[in-house]
Amino acid sequence: MSLHRKPLLVFEAVHKVMAHRKNGRPETVELSEADGRILAEDLRATHPVPPFDKSPYDGFALRSEDTNGLSKENVGTFRVIETIGAGEQASGPLQPGEAVRIMTGAEIPEKADCVAMFEITQSFEENDQAYITLKRTLEEDQNIIKEGSENKEGDSLVAAGTRINPGVKALLATFGYAEIQVYQRPAIGVFATGTELLEVDEPLEPGKIRNSNAYMILSQIERAGGQGFYLGKLDDDFDTCFDAVSRSLTDYDFLITTGGVSVGDYDLMPDIYEKLGAEVLFNKVGMRPGSVTTVAEKDGQLLYGLSGNPSACYVGFELFVHPIIQNFMGNPEPHHRRIEATLGEDFKKPNPFTRFVRGYLDFNKGQVFVYPAGIDKSAVVSSLAHTNVLIVLKGGTRGYQKGDQVEAILLDGFQGQDQFEKE
Amino acid sequence: MSLHRKPLLVFEAVHKVMAHRKNGRPETVELSEADGRILAEDLRATHPVPPFDKSPYDGFALRSEDTNGLSKENVGTFRVIETIGAGEQASGPLQPGEAVRIMTGAEIPEKADCVAMFEITQSFEENDQAYITLKRTLEEDQNIIKEGSENKEGDSLVAAGTRINPGVKALLATFGYAEIQVYQRPAIGVFATGTELLEVDEPLEPGKIRNSNAYMILSQIERAGGQGFYLGKLDDDFDTCFDAVSRSLTDYDFLITTGGVSVGDYDLMPDIYEKLGAEVLFNKVGMRPGSVTTVAEKDGQLLYGLSGNPSACYVGFELFVHPIIQNFMGNPEPHHRRIEATLGEDFKKPNPFTRFVRGYLDFNKGQVFVYPAGIDKSAVVSSLAHTNVLIVLKGGTRGYQKGDQVEAILLDGFQGQDQFEKE
Repeated sequence: MSLHRKPLLVFEAVHKVMAHRKNGRPETVELSEADGRILAEDLRATHPVPPFDKSPYDGFALRSEDTNGLSKENVGTFRVIETIGAGEQASGPLQPGEAVRIMTGAEIPEKADCVAMFEITQSFEENDQAYITLKRTLEEDQNIIKEGSENKEGDSLVAAGTRINPGVKALLATFGYAEIQVYQRPAIGVFATGTELLEVDEPLEPGKIRNSNAYMILSQIERAGGQGFYLGKLDDDFDTCFDAVSRSLTDYDFLITTGGVSVGDYDLMPDIYEKLGAEVLFNKVGMRPGSVTTVAEKDGQLLYGLSGNPSACYVGFELFVHPIIQNFMGNPEPHHRRIEATLGEDFKKPNPFTRFVRGYLDFNKGQVFVYPAGIDKSAVVSSLAHTNVLIVLKGGTRGYQKGDQVEAILLDGFQGQDQFEKE
Repeated sequence: MSLHRKPLLVFEAVHKVMAHRKNGRPETVELSEADGRILAEDLRATHPVPPFDKSPYDGFALRSEDTNGLSKENVGTFRVIETIGAGEQASGPLQPGEAVRIMTGAEIPEKADCVAMFEITQSFEENDQAYITLKRTLEEDQNIIKEGSENKEGDSLVAAGTRINPGVKALLATFGYAEIQVYQRPAIGVFATGTELLEVDEPLEPGKIRNSNAYMILSQIERAGGQGFYLGKLDDDFDTCFDAVSRSLTDYDFLITTGGVSVGDYDLMPDIYEKLGAEVLFNKVGMRPGSVTTVAEKDGQLLYGLSGNPSACYVGFELFVHPIIQNFMGNPEPHHRRIEATLGEDFKKPNPFTRFVRGYLDFNKGQVFVYPAGIDKSAVVSSLAHTNVLIVLKGGTRGYQKGDQVEAILLDGFQGQDQFEKE
């Protein structure tokens, strides 16, 4: 291991990675399959909404001029010539003295220009002909939802970079966008390295442990929006790993390995990156856990050497891989959102390096609190189960106390942000 | 329409729906396919973690008794008999005066009981035999991660009701749970009713609008964890709708229709529920939008008649369908989380009924803010695009001002809560 390991600040490391970001190509998908994808086109209203003057109520469509001067003392009578429901049209223009019984959402008949709600009319029949009486004057456009009052044709609907959610789908369906252009999801290959690894369905053997990182990373890739492909586990052997990594380079947009990154006889990834002719962007970051995270770049492709330690692997993914996936998919705010929060309990152990502590978010009386998720030994996988934030605890000589203001990186369910700030 | 419409409070309506909740059956899925599912079994550690004493560092495994009294003045020498990496085992028990070169994660050799880090040793060779010298005394168990120090065999890992995320997957992979029992996802049939509806790929016609609600609801079902099936659009005709709903009853766990619920000639669902012999739980709720939401129950199956108005449909789904889906899937906290927040801008229009205003969450200096997402006309679909909360504005005679404390229902990315509180 010949590399000199000079730790970078986390934000410097993130910037180095993001300098090699690349964008997925646009592809066409059916709207029904588009959840979670990011629009690759600005979409505009293809017609006004509503596309015609329509009735907001069940009532009677009238000509407002026919209601001039009507009052309790001067009651008007109208002949009801037909009934139209939503989706139907009147058979012809409304003539003076006529009314059309109209249902919510139906198109206002030609020459009608107001709607009298049922409740203000009286109905009667005479010689099999329906009539209504009205004791009020109505204005032009009264109780009419005008064509284009919500959207004009050509109005901007949603911009490229918008993530598709139920509301966006409703909007696009309204305008007939049965297919849309979204950015591709990246295909990401995942290797687990370590002679000590067993697959999850193998019985335990002396000296060995099961491969949990690959499952975790594939799930993190899925959550970040990418497509993960598990390429198997590799023994800690230079030739084995070199061959496997070399062969897979061209098949994936990014490649992730876990393990094989710390300093020692069997730590391979930095050497493999060198032999591949890749540029090692960094191999040491001033953070805990995950200080030995290594990222390299070859011919525009990012190669991630994440730690074999589960917690370090988890944190390294969220800081360095997640934004690359979201950027690939077209998100202009690819980083996890970082917010200020109040620490909900003591975290007494000081550390000279910035810690990214797995934790969870809570709310109380309008304030945001964060709590460390159980013991934070970097090897303890069990503390990961309830994690939805990374609590950022800057390095120093003292620990942290309940009530301290800290930063937290939101892992789940929020819009991102465009920059990763200095820790 | 013969039903008397007496509005319920929202929480009363939610309680009536939840009284008819039912649970999905457990089913076995592969761990790799389990993201977002909810565990149907309590899982325990199948072995200690670590499963053997192991080294946290690259170093030399020694017998601590051999280091007794070592110091700068009394340097000890050890014969290095072999090197073991993670996943390998020593060939036999360590004899007095011997050392084993050991890598991070490797099993401590028999009879060894401490590890000296590389950095505190000096290596040399003599007659092709490697040796180290050591100038310190080491304690028993020094620099050893003891078997079972993270988990004992039989320790509770995760309880039934836990949602599977990347951390939980890592944990379960560690213990060899290649398959797990989770609760089934509900199958939910969706009809859109309305003679005015066109499918999304049909050209606009006079008097008609495109069916956007079905797309929206299918996306909401997906987000809530269920499986949605679009069963088509139906004309506003009693026999058509009655036949379609009757035929589909037995095929799905729940059935949703949109449209056909408000008072008028063509409003069908309440009548259809009556003819089906279903019990109408309610057909009017004291809220805006969505006051005409109707829910019925027949033979243990819930039938949702959501409003045809997109915003009302959206809100009705999140309040009344989402918790039923999450409960079916095994979540003991099936309701969306409700929190207190500061209103980020004025909402001046008073309303006698409780409003559920689509909005989005933001954070600033440790406080939570909510902002209405654009205009809140109940028919305006465009305001749904950025919604991740429903802002709860209690009914009254005055509007709300920026800075007011309000409640907000979190739609995305948070653990739920077990009860839906009174509004």
